[in-house]
Amino acid sequence: MNGAHLPGPAAPTPSALAALHPLPLAAVRLTPDGLLGRWQDRNATATLPHCIDQLDVQGNLTNLRRVTGDSDAEYRNMWFADTDVYKTLEAAAWEIGRTGGGFAEFLTDVAALLEKAQDADGYLDSYYQVDRREQQWTDLGFSHEMYSAGHLIQAAVAAYRATGSAQLLGVARRFADLLVTRFGPAGADVVDGHPEVETALVELYRLTGHEPYLAQAKRSLELRGHRRLGEGRFGPRYWQDDQPLRDAREVMGHAVRQQYLLAGAVDVAVETGDAGLLATAERLFTEALAHKTYLTGGQGSRHKDEGFGDPYELPPDRAYAETCAAIGSFHTAWRLLLATGHAKYADEMERVLYNGIAGSTAVDGRAFFYSNPLQLRTGHDGSHEDTPSQRLSWYSCACCPPNLARLMASLHTYAATGDDDGLQVHLYADGSITAGGYQLAVRTDYPWDERITLTVTAAGGPGPWTLALRVPSWCRDARLSVNGSVVRTGAQEGYLRLNRTWKAGDRVELTLAMPARIVAAHPRVDAVRGSVALARGPVVYCLEHADLPPHLSGTLFEDLELDLSRPLELGTGTLAPVTIRVPVLVRDDADGSLYRPYPPSAVGDGRAATVPAIPYFLWANRAAGPMRVWIPVAATR
Amino acid sequence: MNGAHLPGPAAPTPSALAALHPLPLAAVRLTPDGLLGRWQDRNATATLPHCIDQLDVQGNLTNLRRVTGDSDAEYRNMWFADTDVYKTLEAAAWEIGRTGGGFAEFLTDVAALLEKAQDADGYLDSYYQVDRREQQWTDLGFSHEMYSAGHLIQAAVAAYRATGSAQLLGVARRFADLLVTRFGPAGADVVDGHPEVETALVELYRLTGHEPYLAQAKRSLELRGHRRLGEGRFGPRYWQDDQPLRDAREVMGHAVRQQYLLAGAVDVAVETGDAGLLATAERLFTEALAHKTYLTGGQGSRHKDEGFGDPYELPPDRAYAETCAAIGSFHTAWRLLLATGHAKYADEMERVLYNGIAGSTAVDGRAFFYSNPLQLRTGHDGSHEDTPSQRLSWYSCACCPPNLARLMASLHTYAATGDDDGLQVHLYADGSITAGGYQLAVRTDYPWDERITLTVTAAGGPGPWTLALRVPSWCRDARLSVNGSVVRTGAQEGYLRLNRTWKAGDRVELTLAMPARIVAAHPRVDAVRGSVALARGPVVYCLEHADLPPHLSGTLFEDLELDLSRPLELGTGTLAPVTIRVPVLVRDDADGSLYRPYPPSAVGDGRAATVPAIPYFLWANRAAGPMRVWIPVAATR
Repeated sequence: MNGAHLPGPAAPTPSALAALHPLPLAAVRLTPDGLLGRWQDRNATATLPHCIDQLDVQGNLTNLRRVTGDSDAEYRNMWFADTDVYKTLEAAAWEIGRTGGGFAEFLTDVAALLEKAQDADGYLDSYYQVDRREQQWTDLGFSHEMYSAGHLIQAAVAAYRATGSAQLLGVARRFADLLVTRFGPAGADVVDGHPEVETALVELYRLTGHEPYLAQAKRSLELRGHRRLGEGRFGPRYWQDDQPLRDAREVMGHAVRQQYLLAGAVDVAVETGDAGLLATAERLFTEALAHKTYLTGGQGSRHKDEGFGDPYELPPDRAYAETCAAIGSFHTAWRLLLATGHAKYADEMERVLYNGIAGSTAVDGRAFFYSNPLQLRTGHDGSHEDTPSQRLSWYSCACCPPNLARLMASLHTYAATGDDDGLQVHLYADGSITAGGYQLAVRTDYPWDERITLTVTAAGGPGPWTLALRVPSWCRDARLSVNGSVVRTGAQEGYLRLNRTWKAGDRVELTLAMPARIVAAHPRVDAVRGSVALARGPVVYCLEHADLPPHLSGTLFEDLELDLSRPLELGTGTLAPVTIRVPVLVRDDADGSLYRPYPPSAVGDGRAATVPAIPYFLWANRAAGPMRVWIPVAATR
Repeated sequence: MNGAHLPGPAAPTPSALAALHPLPLAAVRLTPDGLLGRWQDRNATATLPHCIDQLDVQGNLTNLRRVTGDSDAEYRNMWFADTDVYKTLEAAAWEIGRTGGGFAEFLTDVAALLEKAQDADGYLDSYYQVDRREQQWTDLGFSHEMYSAGHLIQAAVAAYRATGSAQLLGVARRFADLLVTRFGPAGADVVDGHPEVETALVELYRLTGHEPYLAQAKRSLELRGHRRLGEGRFGPRYWQDDQPLRDAREVMGHAVRQQYLLAGAVDVAVETGDAGLLATAERLFTEALAHKTYLTGGQGSRHKDEGFGDPYELPPDRAYAETCAAIGSFHTAWRLLLATGHAKYADEMERVLYNGIAGSTAVDGRAFFYSNPLQLRTGHDGSHEDTPSQRLSWYSCACCPPNLARLMASLHTYAATGDDDGLQVHLYADGSITAGGYQLAVRTDYPWDERITLTVTAAGGPGPWTLALRVPSWCRDARLSVNGSVVRTGAQEGYLRLNRTWKAGDRVELTLAMPARIVAAHPRVDAVRGSVALARGPVVYCLEHADLPPHLSGTLFEDLELDLSRPLELGTGTLAPVTIRVPVLVRDDADGSLYRPYPPSAVGDGRAATVPAIPYFLWANRAAGPMRVWIPVAATR
């Protein structure tokens, strides 16, 4: 079976609440002429092979071989290390679906290992299967057993959709059936401390049509919020268990858990026709964007509990902004986009993709940030794994790298959707799109170039068909032409819609003006008061120490201020195709005291200079050194 | 034996490196007419009894009775819960020395319990003495066994100095002797993950003259910094073990550990005549004040590891500023003051006392902050023990309350010192001072009133004698008169020195002008850019929600800005004798978006109002609500 006609991740059934539907896996192809296509290729040639290597090096596969009796090594890594295997499997599956090649043996071999390791009743968790059998299901708050089952299920769904292989699906269904038996209506009223199984079970339902999976996902969602998990280390808010999701007024607690829970809630809502639950998810996601999200789309302000902070608590230096939380936000946004068709969710997908997510991977694809701060200070102590000065090749909690791999391998599936009227393009990248009998060639160097050209290479039916093109919320000047003629059309819900009869050769050109933009934060964001950020198109920029001329290096990086009396200009660089040339003044603070009378004594004018800002997602690819997204604005002197 | 002629905490021997020496315990008496005296009385009548109650309620004493076979209850609380007992004992001892009354039975009973619980070889640690004997000394990174020994020793030294009782001293010496035997030059090269035993052993040496205690303290100090403790949870910097203290360029890691280590280093340095080590401690303490200290004197910017952050990383909302770190800073400053005579250390004692330390205790003396943020936001999640919205009566890790009790019970001993020429007054409070045959009556309502009157009630020898009065660094206008005549005398090293022949009835009046001050931070402190703080005298002020008129309450607290076009004025209040009446504008931010184009669209003028600021140390004594020390400055409109 060829899965190319099945959809990618998170594909609602025909009866679901849905404004838009995903396209089949093979509908969108991205080329390496565009940035997203290059990211996908880098993932295939570097990140995914690196993850597969690490599964060997770090002992994740050996953990499973302990279960099958093929190893007598000690268990290694986090107790949920199986999920690194599952996410890597999922990535391999999507990659096979995308390009056909390279990872089939890995997928088959590991699926066979999992089949062999699985208990007769369906249980599978290498941490608990050898010398901790008596502890199975005894510590659901932290054991991650259902979380792990969820990632197994997602890998199996991906393998089936992308390769047609049902081998892993059998393993996943046996585990899912065990969950239904053990924790279904006839079983114990428990939830896992880490949401994930909810969205996975809905996906499994979507693939199999087996209603108990959907019911179990819904049950898991409804059981949460009644303090069944106890206090744990950080209180019930940490795992969103202090009140039912429907009653929550804000996102709270562990950011990844919150986003995975929201994604599961949307999945359950659309498949069960629960408009109230969908509204809850929309409300909470919107609340997060309004009060608890970094300019990069990153979420989670606190290191201690990897959690959301209070409203407007968004310190750039201590931003946790975990890579997996950004991926979780992307997943939730995708589900809300499908459910509602609202462009704001695609806007958020774009923002977090180009910034909070993209910044986590090194240019070589083999090193990663787990936390993604928006500032690194001179004198930063990078000795902690949660605050490194540069990306690390792996982590003791290695959730992020394989999560990146599975997202990147499936990235093309998020670029466009369909509905009864036509096609919606959400993410712009060089490639091709096939939908409803139409074929489009997309040529663009987005996000560096502001022009996107879409050429109809094959037209579908004779009647009219609507091509909807997202105008990002950051864009103040979108120009659209068809076959060279400028089209005047108002954006609706963030989309420019061209409803017409198409013929092969028709050419649409969308130009999204991309001047360098200066961005301010709500004044309640105390941590960046008096500072602004720079952006162009969807890309947030930053100043990095490596770009300073030698006479401005050292601690003077801390004294740079934006000089608004001179214009920003665009430039080019080796690391980044487009830089922003930033006029700065080097603050001259003769008074070195930490606290001093106000107003301070007169200071000099500061030395004027111009330094390039680079895309935030490219920081920390050169010598380790300070960086900042938010730049103090020089006061009028 | 009456200990009134022995000194208080941290008393160098006559041969130590010392510019100043502590006065005998009975030399300074504070009256309840002054704030410090009232704090001491509140400690005696509320905090200390509360701590003693909690030792029963929480099971700390039961833990010890398990060892003596008088209880078969489970061990409760942190594994180092014995230290809560020791610090409470120390507080009781100082209090007995101060007023004679009330706690003798507690001291005697618990000392007897400890005697009974102690092993024959001197070991004493109720966590490890019953069912974890085989784990003794096996986990020095986290076991706190030597840390616990240190607090036992300090309690014993206090009991001897304050009450003359050697009962506890016997217990402490036996444990100290065990440490010397087991971990001395003939023993294992190990250090404890939490410094404390160093300063305690030096104090024990000071009291007993037994050289091996000093040698063991020095050895413990020198063994640290060679990564013997391993990585732990937060890496070797966490416990100051990544490099020898002498090589350290900045304070780092867990703030309490760092300060306790510095205090021990000063003690070792002055007793061994190690000027280089003393210089190291001065350098590191000064570095902390220059880059890593809150305006309140609090230290520690991070919740995750209770640690210092990077230089200038001083977020007011996420300030950890642990009470014990503030107390540790006070202890280190006291030792440096004695060693050097530099007023800057007394300045720091004053700052951290009136702000970082004082703010931790509720006005009723029975509730405490463990972390001491400088800002609490509207919508704050106070459900975590490390970020409560109001003070808690006790903590699962209860280190801070008894630490406050022992400091407050001995507070009078830090007010003044002597040297060969006379007396130095460092902390001003209503009371009396006896030194060198002179007696002084001190009358003042400091820090509310700017006048301090010192009257000689008994004169010592016939020759000249120097009365040195500290002029705090915050003071820009100090006026001094003797017997009504203004004296022109330049401050030297921060002290106004009156060298003259004194007679009974001589009257010195010092006036330290206390206008409301506006304080700015170094521009590298990104977290408070565009904001200022208010202070008067040594007291930092804050805006608190409870003081807002109803029409400005709710989330509008977040929108207050300081209106510098109108003057600050002083006022009075019920909670605070002196308030600062702060002209504000309520920012009118019609654009609610989290991020927006810069410059923002025009905003209104804001509503003008005047709200009282209260001393920071009095916050959170009314209804829970937001608070801020750093106030945004309204831009010119």
